[in-house]
Amino acid sequence: MSSQGREGKAPGSMLLLLLLSCSAPPAPFVTSASSGLRFVSSSSSLHLLPAVLKHTGRITLEQTLRLRGGDSNDCNEFGGYQVLNNEMRESFDTVMKRRFVFMQSFLIHGGVSGLFDYGPIGCSIKNNIVDAWRKFFVVSDGMLEVACPSITPHRVLEASGHVKRFTDLMVRDETSGECFRADKLIEEFCDVDLMKDAKHSNETRREMMMSLKARAGSMTIEQVEDAISTFNITSLSTGAKLSKPLPFNLMFKSTIGPSSGSSVFLRPETAQGIFTNFKRLLEFNGGKLPMTIAQIGKSFRNEIAPKQGLLRQREFEMAEIEHFLANGETGHVEFCKMADVEVCLFSRTAQERGEAESWTTLGQAVEDGIIVNQALAYFLGKTQKFLRQCGIKAIRFRQHRATEMAHYAQDCWDAEVLCSYGWVEVVGHADRACFDLQMHSEATDVPLVAWEQHQEPRERRVVQATIDRALIGKAFRARSKLVVEALEKFAEKEGEEALAFQKGKEEGAPEALKLRVEEEELEIPAACVSFKETIVREHGAFYYPRVVEPSFGLDRLFYCSLEHAFYVRGNDHERTVLGLPVSIAPFQCCMLGLSSNDQLMPIVYEIHEEMRKMGVNCRLDDSAANIGKRYARMDEIGVPFAVTVDFQSCQDGTVTLRERDSMEQVRVPKEEVPQLVRSLCEARESPDVSWAAAKERYPSV
Amino acid sequence: MSSQGREGKAPGSMLLLLLLSCSAPPAPFVTSASSGLRFVSSSSSLHLLPAVLKHTGRITLEQTLRLRGGDSNDCNEFGGYQVLNNEMRESFDTVMKRRFVFMQSFLIHGGVSGLFDYGPIGCSIKNNIVDAWRKFFVVSDGMLEVACPSITPHRVLEASGHVKRFTDLMVRDETSGECFRADKLIEEFCDVDLMKDAKHSNETRREMMMSLKARAGSMTIEQVEDAISTFNITSLSTGAKLSKPLPFNLMFKSTIGPSSGSSVFLRPETAQGIFTNFKRLLEFNGGKLPMTIAQIGKSFRNEIAPKQGLLRQREFEMAEIEHFLANGETGHVEFCKMADVEVCLFSRTAQERGEAESWTTLGQAVEDGIIVNQALAYFLGKTQKFLRQCGIKAIRFRQHRATEMAHYAQDCWDAEVLCSYGWVEVVGHADRACFDLQMHSEATDVPLVAWEQHQEPRERRVVQATIDRALIGKAFRARSKLVVEALEKFAEKEGEEALAFQKGKEEGAPEALKLRVEEEELEIPAACVSFKETIVREHGAFYYPRVVEPSFGLDRLFYCSLEHAFYVRGNDHERTVLGLPVSIAPFQCCMLGLSSNDQLMPIVYEIHEEMRKMGVNCRLDDSAANIGKRYARMDEIGVPFAVTVDFQSCQDGTVTLRERDSMEQVRVPKEEVPQLVRSLCEARESPDVSWAAAKERYPSV
Repeated sequence: MSSQGREGKAPGSMLLLLLLSCSAPPAPFVTSASSGLRFVSSSSSLHLLPAVLKHTGRITLEQTLRLRGGDSNDCNEFGGYQVLNNEMRESFDTVMKRRFVFMQSFLIHGGVSGLFDYGPIGCSIKNNIVDAWRKFFVVSDGMLEVACPSITPHRVLEASGHVKRFTDLMVRDETSGECFRADKLIEEFCDVDLMKDAKHSNETRREMMMSLKARAGSMTIEQVEDAISTFNITSLSTGAKLSKPLPFNLMFKSTIGPSSGSSVFLRPETAQGIFTNFKRLLEFNGGKLPMTIAQIGKSFRNEIAPKQGLLRQREFEMAEIEHFLANGETGHVEFCKMADVEVCLFSRTAQERGEAESWTTLGQAVEDGIIVNQALAYFLGKTQKFLRQCGIKAIRFRQHRATEMAHYAQDCWDAEVLCSYGWVEVVGHADRACFDLQMHSEATDVPLVAWEQHQEPRERRVVQATIDRALIGKAFRARSKLVVEALEKFAEKEGEEALAFQKGKEEGAPEALKLRVEEEELEIPAACVSFKETIVREHGAFYYPRVVEPSFGLDRLFYCSLEHAFYVRGNDHERTVLGLPVSIAPFQCCMLGLSSNDQLMPIVYEIHEEMRKMGVNCRLDDSAANIGKRYARMDEIGVPFAVTVDFQSCQDGTVTLRERDSMEQVRVPKEEVPQLVRSLCEARESPDVSWAAAKERYPSV
Repeated sequence: MSSQGREGKAPGSMLLLLLLSCSAPPAPFVTSASSGLRFVSSSSSLHLLPAVLKHTGRITLEQTLRLRGGDSNDCNEFGGYQVLNNEMRESFDTVMKRRFVFMQSFLIHGGVSGLFDYGPIGCSIKNNIVDAWRKFFVVSDGMLEVACPSITPHRVLEASGHVKRFTDLMVRDETSGECFRADKLIEEFCDVDLMKDAKHSNETRREMMMSLKARAGSMTIEQVEDAISTFNITSLSTGAKLSKPLPFNLMFKSTIGPSSGSSVFLRPETAQGIFTNFKRLLEFNGGKLPMTIAQIGKSFRNEIAPKQGLLRQREFEMAEIEHFLANGETGHVEFCKMADVEVCLFSRTAQERGEAESWTTLGQAVEDGIIVNQALAYFLGKTQKFLRQCGIKAIRFRQHRATEMAHYAQDCWDAEVLCSYGWVEVVGHADRACFDLQMHSEATDVPLVAWEQHQEPRERRVVQATIDRALIGKAFRARSKLVVEALEKFAEKEGEEALAFQKGKEEGAPEALKLRVEEEELEIPAACVSFKETIVREHGAFYYPRVVEPSFGLDRLFYCSLEHAFYVRGNDHERTVLGLPVSIAPFQCCMLGLSSNDQLMPIVYEIHEEMRKMGVNCRLDDSAANIGKRYARMDEIGVPFAVTVDFQSCQDGTVTLRERDSMEQVRVPKEEVPQLVRSLCEARESPDVSWAAAKERYPSV
């Protein structure tokens, strides 16, 4: 569930931008082989800096450089991909806004932070990502997909541990009432303190701050309180005193039913709907494991102060997979397909030792014990392939340190993508062991277990109780059922003691067995029961299956795809292009007339109609703007193909087909163009439908 | 928004089932040409009947028949489609449960009424319906799709009228505390009263009850209170006294942000997200109308006591379209494609006069003034086509009576589907006029308007104020800006009065103009202002566009598709089939081995792999059950094709391909089968990929 969880820190600041953009590009401050200094940042601390400066005064360029160095999140290039720089990011934001790709929600009513609308372009791209995900994971791997409601009763999320533990620590400015996430606040404080230390005068203090900052994300409530009082941390907005830290549950609460109703939450992850249905799903699957269940849907988190745009929404789309493993099994039947996939791993050890990420194959990583098992490694590989399919270029897998894992997790690897916010967690991969199934079983008395058939029956020594029910009935009346159960349990759990009692009984010693039944110690007359050891043959056993969970934050994936697709032609920031993969482009094609001439438009409409009949998602632009401007508009929103009807079309029935990235054009008979566009978009990688093949077949323009 | 609104009443009862299933099928009690008596029902009153009987005693068959007659909702056959009878409905429910098609949510934790989980089969079918909808409406009609959050601030839904008016009247059993929807309770009461009237002894009372029942759904709070006291209506569960009726708002409430936060609701319809983005969307569309916006997503309604399964959920999926019209326009550019479509209309007049539904074409209906305009009629046609594509057979369009329309609506037509619950509203079609845009504009001061360019500039006489700002400034100082605004407004709104003042001024009469400025009456010295009449030429004008809204309840559509697809082979209730259209079937194909023989399984896996690569959603059944049983399993969940590897496959490389409904089989070379299945499933109606063509091409088995 962690894909909108506590992502990699992004402690940059607009101030840095301002400082850095005046200077020549500095030499990268290398802390790891692949990390450099990031130029662009609009991180969570952005909003605080003007206030920070008021309290701390100016800082120098060297200070900021030194400060940035310690953070592996600072990097502007990775694996050949260059993060959007300041100017590019500004152009990007402008296009997103001007073409209504996405936008803060309810702006005419003042807006709400953490809620976003997807306009026609954004919505279409996101739908395509969802479809692609479903094909790539659910259909191709034969997963079973389910859909459960967002509204979830209190008792379900109590069983899963969310009511108690799904919290962030919060502190309040005692003057203004403004709320801060405690970890973010402490990180900011450390940044500010480090900036103040202008002359490197106090190396001890510096190290103390670096260490405090590193620990901020995983502190207990007492540690936060201690840090605030030790370092006299105050509100960064006003300098006022801070309240004591308190845990703030991130789930939205409501009630269901008339009048006061019952307490419910909006789910903070989709996974619980899968766990609560485990029994039925296992039955559907013929009782067989492994079994892989997927769910795509909205989740909700009432973030304290969301400020990172699409990356930290209060309502967001997740795609989660729960891969349940057979007892003792840790492999994956299709791991062989992934063993050679090269990945960039940033292991827990590397992070702790201050080492760099390193490249390896998944097979090697499992062999070396870096990734715990094949099942987890398989999904890392699958995830990377999918991210690449969405056009994402800079990917690494970062292992969680022991202190930062969610309450249910045993091991976690985040797929992080480098974008202008720094390294951003887009997909979490958690080994949840059998935590959830066990919790729900205990809360409901419904055993969410699977049956393992032994190859050979196994023999086991057990102690059994032979009980004289009539005697028990006479002695204990209404409570006799409880006594019988207690005796059986005693035999099962305290076998040695039961046999000792039996031995004594045979030797005539004890007259009664002392036994706790519902908080009361009873004396069971020795005549009522005898114990003996026997051998039972067991043909199998029930067990709680272990589960591996890849969990996608689809809005983050969407955002990263857009940033990675964005470029400008030449150096002209007026000519921006979204070079999205064809499979996720918002429209597959655009129909244009060279002019709105009466001869041309009927042909435009006719081909457009044909395209629609074929299921090609084709946009018609019949505006009066000149053709170059209309091509530019299509480039800007990432439409991969444009079909133009010109005057030659009226004569020989051909039209031009233009490809977005190369801007190349070919002439195609108008009857052939809908099928050609359809084939080009279906992206089945067969050589006869590629753009290269189209160029060979049809004359260039 | 009304697709999960107040649907057609379904006052049947399980008791009727029991009574009727003992008798021979009665002759239909005809109230309309097409309506008959419904056999199967499990309506909202179901749960009350045991209690009802306690209070009322037994009733006779004739009584129930007589009672049922007056309700157009009672019908078991329509246009050749036979509603599931009692036994069939039971088989249907069993399959839905056993194969986990859908199921009440969180059952292991006790369940929550009105919340449902979709299992692998249900989820897949529903996804296919969503995809089909998107292709049929958004892509094919070039609509613009958006996606907005469910969480909606208080002020947005206050502006739209939902905070005040999105309510049901509720009464509470004063002893047990149980809550009832007032309208449903009154209807139940009437039913019970009518049943008691065993000897038809009191015709006046009978008519009174029929009339009360008919009015129950549209009563004011006072009318409900009056009815409860006049007829001494008590709780149907316990017979206890009822509380006064009170309006219960159906929106789920929560708060956003830390600590107390701001008040938010979960949206009760998706439409508001479209209206609040109107300005941006119009800009995206180049300022042009008509413009059609779509949104698919969850909506939420805290129903008082939901009891009709998937038909009345508290969290449900909607697909809504807002079709904004240009000023004065009521046509639709593609209406010509719909004019000849035959539809069954149940007009407001027909309902009021107790007449039957009638068949007509959409063109005729518009000409006759039954459907108010082409735009609305176009969408009725489009809806009907889509419902048929989903395999839905019995469809009528019912116009809302004046008293039952939602607060924003001017005219409404519901697409109703006949199923075992009676006539169920699946799609609402509302003419919302410009209600919403106007409301949001007024609440936000952001004008949600479009610009209409006049063909020729138009001249208009206006009164203008010439203001001496220096004098005003001296006289009114800080308030002078307000005074200037008030003077301009006065000239604009009260032209005649302004001219009269001017006339007086010129004749030397008044020394000052009395003007209200912010609740205070000021005297403006005459020297400060003069007024004159002039002619202005206007090139266009702003206006609030009218909107037509088709609103789909996708869960209801899903449910009706399932019921309509369900049949049994011969009379064998163990051999049930979901004859779903291929386009929405849960899996497109199933791969089977005749036995789990070591020779066969590798071929099974190989073809399965090929299918997956081709994007065919193919399920593998490698269980040990015999082949007939495995075919039956696939029929039960609606898989249209099955590919079987048998011993002949090892020899000649062919496999069998079986079609679900005909159970016919052909032998196909294994290399060709993936492409064949893919083509058959893509449902492009070309003759070379139909099942008939496959039978001609390949030998039958």
